[in-house]
Amino acid sequence: MLPLSYDSILDRALAEDLSSGDVTTEACILQTAQAVAHAVARGPIVVCGGEVFARVFAKVDGAVRFEAHCEDGARASLGTRVWTVRGPARSILMGERTALNLVQRMCGIATTTRTYVDAVAEGKRTRITDTRKTMPGLRILDRYAVRVGGGKNHRDNLGSAVLIKDNHVVAAGGVREAVSRARAHAPHTSKIECEIDSLDQLEEAITAGADILLLDNMKTDVVKEAVARARGRVFLEASGGITLERVRELSLAGVDAISVGALTHSVVAADLGLDFET
Amino acid sequence: MLPLSYDSILDRALAEDLSSGDVTTEACILQTAQAVAHAVARGPIVVCGGEVFARVFAKVDGAVRFEAHCEDGARASLGTRVWTVRGPARSILMGERTALNLVQRMCGIATTTRTYVDAVAEGKRTRITDTRKTMPGLRILDRYAVRVGGGKNHRDNLGSAVLIKDNHVVAAGGVREAVSRARAHAPHTSKIECEIDSLDQLEEAITAGADILLLDNMKTDVVKEAVARARGRVFLEASGGITLERVRELSLAGVDAISVGALTHSVVAADLGLDFET
Amino acid sequence: MLPLSYDSILDRALAEDLSSGDVTTEACILQTAQAVAHAVARGPIVVCGGEVFARVFAKVDGAVRFEAHCEDGARASLGTRVWTVRGPARSILMGERTALNLVQRMCGIATTTRTYVDAVAEGKRTRITDTRKTMPGLRILDRYAVRVGGGKNHRDNLGSAVLIKDNHVVAAGGVREAVSRARAHAPHTSKIECEIDSLDQLEEAITAGADILLLDNMKTDVVKEAVARARGRVFLEASGGITLERVRELSLAGVDAISVGALTHSVVAADLGLDFET
Amino acid sequence: MLPLSYDSILDRALAEDLSSGDVTTEACILQTAQAVAHAVARGPIVVCGGEVFARVFAKVDGAVRFEAHCEDGARASLGTRVWTVRGPARSILMGERTALNLVQRMCGIATTTRTYVDAVAEGKRTRITDTRKTMPGLRILDRYAVRVGGGKNHRDNLGSAVLIKDNHVVAAGGVREAVSRARAHAPHTSKIECEIDSLDQLEEAITAGADILLLDNMKTDVVKEAVARARGRVFLEASGGITLERVRELSLAGVDAISVGALTHSVVAADLGLDFET
Amino acid sequence: MLPLSYDSILDRALAEDLSSGDVTTEACILQTAQAVAHAVARGPIVVCGGEVFARVFAKVDGAVRFEAHCEDGARASLGTRVWTVRGPARSILMGERTALNLVQRMCGIATTTRTYVDAVAEGKRTRITDTRKTMPGLRILDRYAVRVGGGKNHRDNLGSAVLIKDNHVVAAGGVREAVSRARAHAPHTSKIECEIDSLDQLEEAITAGADILLLDNMKTDVVKEAVARARGRVFLEASGGITLERVRELSLAGVDAISVGALTHSVVAADLGLDFET
Amino acid sequence: MLPLSYDSILDRALAEDLSSGDVTTEACILQTAQAVAHAVARGPIVVCGGEVFARVFAKVDGAVRFEAHCEDGARASLGTRVWTVRGPARSILMGERTALNLVQRMCGIATTTRTYVDAVAEGKRTRITDTRKTMPGLRILDRYAVRVGGGKNHRDNLGSAVLIKDNHVVAAGGVREAVSRARAHAPHTSKIECEIDSLDQLEEAITAGADILLLDNMKTDVVKEAVARARGRVFLEASGGITLERVRELSLAGVDAISVGALTHSVVAADLGLDFET
Repeated sequence: MLPLSYDSILDRALAEDLSSGDVTTEACILQTAQAVAHAVARGPIVVCGGEVFARVFAKVDGAVRFEAHCEDGARASLGTRVWTVRGPARSILMGERTALNLVQRMCGIATTTRTYVDAVAEGKRTRITDTRKTMPGLRILDRYAVRVGGGKNHRDNLGSAVLIKDNHVVAAGGVREAVSRARAHAPHTSKIECEIDSLDQLEEAITAGADILLLDNMKTDVVKEAVARARGRVFLEASGGITLERVRELSLAGVDAISVGALTHSVVAADLGLDFET
Repeated sequence: MLPLSYDSILDRALAEDLSSGDVTTEACILQTAQAVAHAVARGPIVVCGGEVFARVFAKVDGAVRFEAHCEDGARASLGTRVWTVRGPARSILMGERTALNLVQRMCGIATTTRTYVDAVAEGKRTRITDTRKTMPGLRILDRYAVRVGGGKNHRDNLGSAVLIKDNHVVAAGGVREAVSRARAHAPHTSKIECEIDSLDQLEEAITAGADILLLDNMKTDVVKEAVARARGRVFLEASGGITLERVRELSLAGVDAISVGALTHSVVAADLGLDFET
Repeated sequence: MLPLSYDSILDRALAEDLSSGDVTTEACILQTAQAVAHAVARGPIVVCGGEVFARVFAKVDGAVRFEAHCEDGARASLGTRVWTVRGPARSILMGERTALNLVQRMCGIATTTRTYVDAVAEGKRTRITDTRKTMPGLRILDRYAVRVGGGKNHRDNLGSAVLIKDNHVVAAGGVREAVSRARAHAPHTSKIECEIDSLDQLEEAITAGADILLLDNMKTDVVKEAVARARGRVFLEASGGITLERVRELSLAGVDAISVGALTHSVVAADLGLDFET
Repeated sequence: MLPLSYDSILDRALAEDLSSGDVTTEACILQTAQAVAHAVARGPIVVCGGEVFARVFAKVDGAVRFEAHCEDGARASLGTRVWTVRGPARSILMGERTALNLVQRMCGIATTTRTYVDAVAEGKRTRITDTRKTMPGLRILDRYAVRVGGGKNHRDNLGSAVLIKDNHVVAAGGVREAVSRARAHAPHTSKIECEIDSLDQLEEAITAGADILLLDNMKTDVVKEAVARARGRVFLEASGGITLERVRELSLAGVDAISVGALTHSVVAADLGLDFET
Repeated sequence: MLPLSYDSILDRALAEDLSSGDVTTEACILQTAQAVAHAVARGPIVVCGGEVFARVFAKVDGAVRFEAHCEDGARASLGTRVWTVRGPARSILMGERTALNLVQRMCGIATTTRTYVDAVAEGKRTRITDTRKTMPGLRILDRYAVRVGGGKNHRDNLGSAVLIKDNHVVAAGGVREAVSRARAHAPHTSKIECEIDSLDQLEEAITAGADILLLDNMKTDVVKEAVARARGRVFLEASGGITLERVRELSLAGVDAISVGALTHSVVAADLGLDFET
Repeated sequence: MLPLSYDSILDRALAEDLSSGDVTTEACILQTAQAVAHAVARGPIVVCGGEVFARVFAKVDGAVRFEAHCEDGARASLGTRVWTVRGPARSILMGERTALNLVQRMCGIATTTRTYVDAVAEGKRTRITDTRKTMPGLRILDRYAVRVGGGKNHRDNLGSAVLIKDNHVVAAGGVREAVSRARAHAPHTSKIECEIDSLDQLEEAITAGADILLLDNMKTDVVKEAVARARGRVFLEASGGITLERVRELSLAGVDAISVGALTHSVVAADLGLDFET
């Protein structure tokens, strides 16, 4: 990620917590005091967000130095020192909460994504993707964390690709009409994805020129049949109520991608603490 | 909440998703098409965020009208229509994801908070509070949702009140010194909270003038002893690894407040969907 | 276009011209004076930007009313009244230059795009597209104007689709490697476009899985040969030094799209003036 | 120019193109790859925007180094290396389009301005000036480029000087009244410019105290007469439909300044490419 | 003033005070409570800022209605009701401090300016002007208040007019050189003002083409001599340690303008309170 | 103060003055000219704002170096060199006014605050505090300056602590109800302050649980009586029409704090000039 693409997220987060200073730290800690603090995993995690962590402290104080012991994407176990910051004690204390809030989410997403990716049946190349159910305003971090966890990104936003949902189909007067309107309107660089509710719509969508079919909330048997009919003609994405077990089933069924809203809409913060050297 | 305090959150969220338009909707939906859509609970939730939901759509298009069927704080069960929006179909489709992303988090926080509040032993007035472990940049929404769920807010940010943690105590050279420095530095409108690790520090903190003691990660027995020693002299807050069972235990033990990071750092999105009338 | 996607452009433009007020107008025009002014074509144009025009004045003063006599995309000839604004004379005078600067560019782009679209040989469905050579910060308006002129948009930005250029090919170690890396990295909703310099690379790119080939600066004969080899297997886009004559030639040669940087990088402002009723 | 005066233009431009990263470059180019690229003139140009070019890349990545081979204002011919950037290949590729979009406009303006300046008859000191017909939001760059091309700036915005146009005259009830109202209202540091439609108004404007007369769309003969009547008493500016030939004519006629909207409202992008060393 | 030119000032002021809500008002005042409150002068003032006052409350809550009993520029005496706001009690209480902070400054500036304007000797047309010693970020309000008080504005900022100070003269190598460089560089719409330290420089500055001379910290006798030498050839501005008595003296001495930093750099807040109807 | 908490103030101030450059300096001063300039006290002041002063110039030009001869909080007498900047002459001239405008206010506040602090009777520990009557948008600088002058801060904003005023009492139906509602609503980290108009309310407020009583506009005798009744039970703050004499009286009367609006609402700019070495 380019810092220019996430700097405003950090600026807002720091403003939120620090715009009136830190009355406790200013009172208790000498301006000259130095500290060393380690970000330590309190359980098994996939590391994610080293640059973000570093940049939060750099924004608080350019004198804070950062060292990474683990790359983004590495697994860390309980007790692993992931990153270290060194510098003015005040600045480290002031940036601590903001930095942790950000990376605990990022590591949480990466860690969960990895479990989904690992749940794909061996030998299958099904991609696990995110959705647009990301944290409002922090999408770029969420998408990055999904990639770090081994997942892939779905379309970035409503303007970057076509995804025809049931409401669009109804409004357009059918799958064929919806697909062809989208084809005519969208940039030629965008694929056309179309949600189908039943196998009845599958053939219509393919012949209308859809590049990707979204099989939403379909049972595995139906998915299998869809794969049988569509293989080689179109890219198949499954979604809806995806559990780790279903990932395995669906990957065995042969879908090309499984999109998982829970990767980003219900994130369990990774347990990562900041331990000060004493 | 005043809209002026959260408008920028909505603006960023909409920019993130809609800054290049919605190629699908623009292609498939006529500009003149009208729609009615209902936000419907897909399970039991505490409703939260009606104004935010309405305002997202209003920002997309001033012609979208909003109606609330449930007040914030009300419980809704599976199938309950919570809110309704009416207006141009394009605008409702364009705002749908952003609006849902926001309120699913808000309802999720309110719903979880309510379970913690309800876990307080009968007759006890222990307050359940949030922490600063909120979503970076969205703290105001998180804090509001905690209140809607029946919880109370902790300090807003590092500048609005004093919370002396172990690192501050060490750096200041002891509890007494830390508390008195904070007292001298902080606005007289702020209470002085001091974390203690053991009962040894309790008396020192109280005599130093702390208004609130933070009992972090203490066993219930120790908490009981702390309550016995401190009752009536100081406000007692417990934190660390708080489960619903511990809420009951700690409330019975007599603490005045229990702060729960998980209310906001690991939010399960409430299941709330948008159903279009057909 | 949603106002929320271009409001910041208007705000900046107005701030630039009006942040210190308008010393002339404030001195010479009474606050109560009313005016009616018509945007009039001073030559043949394709109308574009009515909403932008209206919104500039609305931002200056909510009391200015707007009326459109021509829809975006309509042709207007010399003397045609395109739009009318009515309201406080001061406000119309203050917004005049900013409004005209914006719509003269938009009409200019739409008008030029239409000539390119019209240059496509009859019966051919070649799409004329823009490029990323847009005015920095005003891309959304430029892209809209291209669509209004009958053109189509290329990818919105570097994150929304893949376009492998010669430098990418060299760095990746060949077309095959570049395409497969891009396929693995990019969202499945994005097509993979690959620039080729010669026909030698055409087969490699197609078999590597490219969806679109960019034929940059190729002579028409070579383009014809490319079409012959690739037809039905891949989408073909031509670019580089595109004139109206070449549009005809290339469309006859059978390419699917022609991208034209000049639509937006060298815009001749459409001649559109604001005439005050006297 | 101070970077603080144009940084926000660059930030918006980069956000527009890079806010979701660069899927192609991230896929195809190793993070460690280094590159050297030269901005090369593809025809004769007046160089303009070296600092802007450098700063775009610096914003993408502080590790990109910049070297200027030509100063702003220098003439470069086909094939001239104007500037060089060295650093991470990814960063140079990501910043390329934004940087070129900006400087191609700036060089285009400077180059065109120079042709107008050169068209002034020998021995005449007529200044060629811009107008407020600049690109909304990028005025500071446009004005700088005009100066680099040898032109002069007109007033910066509606608040920085007085220019009484026909509508102001009508509303104020005559030239005399308009000029005296403006004189009373405007800062004493601003000159008073007044547009006149005919020679009838010339004497009235001068005696009313105008410092500058704007001769809009007047034939050369009329302009000559105006010069004869006004010489030494007032500064004369001509405008309206200015071609290179008219510049010569008008300068010979003796006007002090000629303002040319086309310098900035219809800019032909200078042909400047970025060549990567291989 | 156009709201678009000061809205960001109000937005920041409100964010500063209200970004976390108003815990007191939310606790004590019912959401349905209505109130009427009057801005009342607690002493003699020149009224200034009615629109700003109204807009602060409108931003807090669109339901607050505003009524002005005095126009900007009117004199109000002790007890005068200047403006009234009516609407939700919460919203009025929340906006009160921000609104008062702004208008107390504005009325303060207008009131002080009026005393300076009134100090000009009868029959003299000396203008009292502000300087660039305004409140950082609020200059537009300060300048407006000066005008409301009967003063005039000096140049708006460093880009809108030329003011050659002693350091510029030294660096340029003399008054003549400095003036001619400025004349060549600046827009022809800007006058050239030049500070002189002694009468020795007066003639040089005038012959070099200065339009305005700044007589800084000169004794009245010297000023009189300057007026005698320069009358009719140049505009004369005095500045430096200006008291009300000196205003009279200097106006009698015949200067055209007196610029007074204290109008805006040391503002005494006007005593204006908000009285709630009970 | 953290730069991230005041950077936006400086950015706006510089944009206001420099967004169109500095036509005088650009014309008269060579780009290569270097200068050394000293901020010099023109009278006795309390120094405040060294970091702000330095940062203004750093934002104009990273090449300007800063040296502090006095720490914030030090007293400087007439002629004292407080700070020095060295670097490009243009940059120093361009930043001069903005830097001075900011620090003249900050030093002014610090200097005035010191006189109030010094007016506290010997041996008394009464704290002098600010109020929310700060400059809109610059509150963080105002509050910092108060601390530098030896004062203390009151609550930062409406969300950070409770202050129940007469309107809240009336609306809530009495002191007891207001205090208990506030106690229930506010974070437990906030003290509850309640304004009382007469001694009658004193006992009610204390028994209702107020932590702080605000004695607004009470005569010294009444204050003494309040102290006698409340000592040891509650913190007492006096306010309203505070002069230096009253500070002494009130401190002798035994109040714990005196809040003084004039510290920030009517600031006399400290006389501090920038002298260039010649």
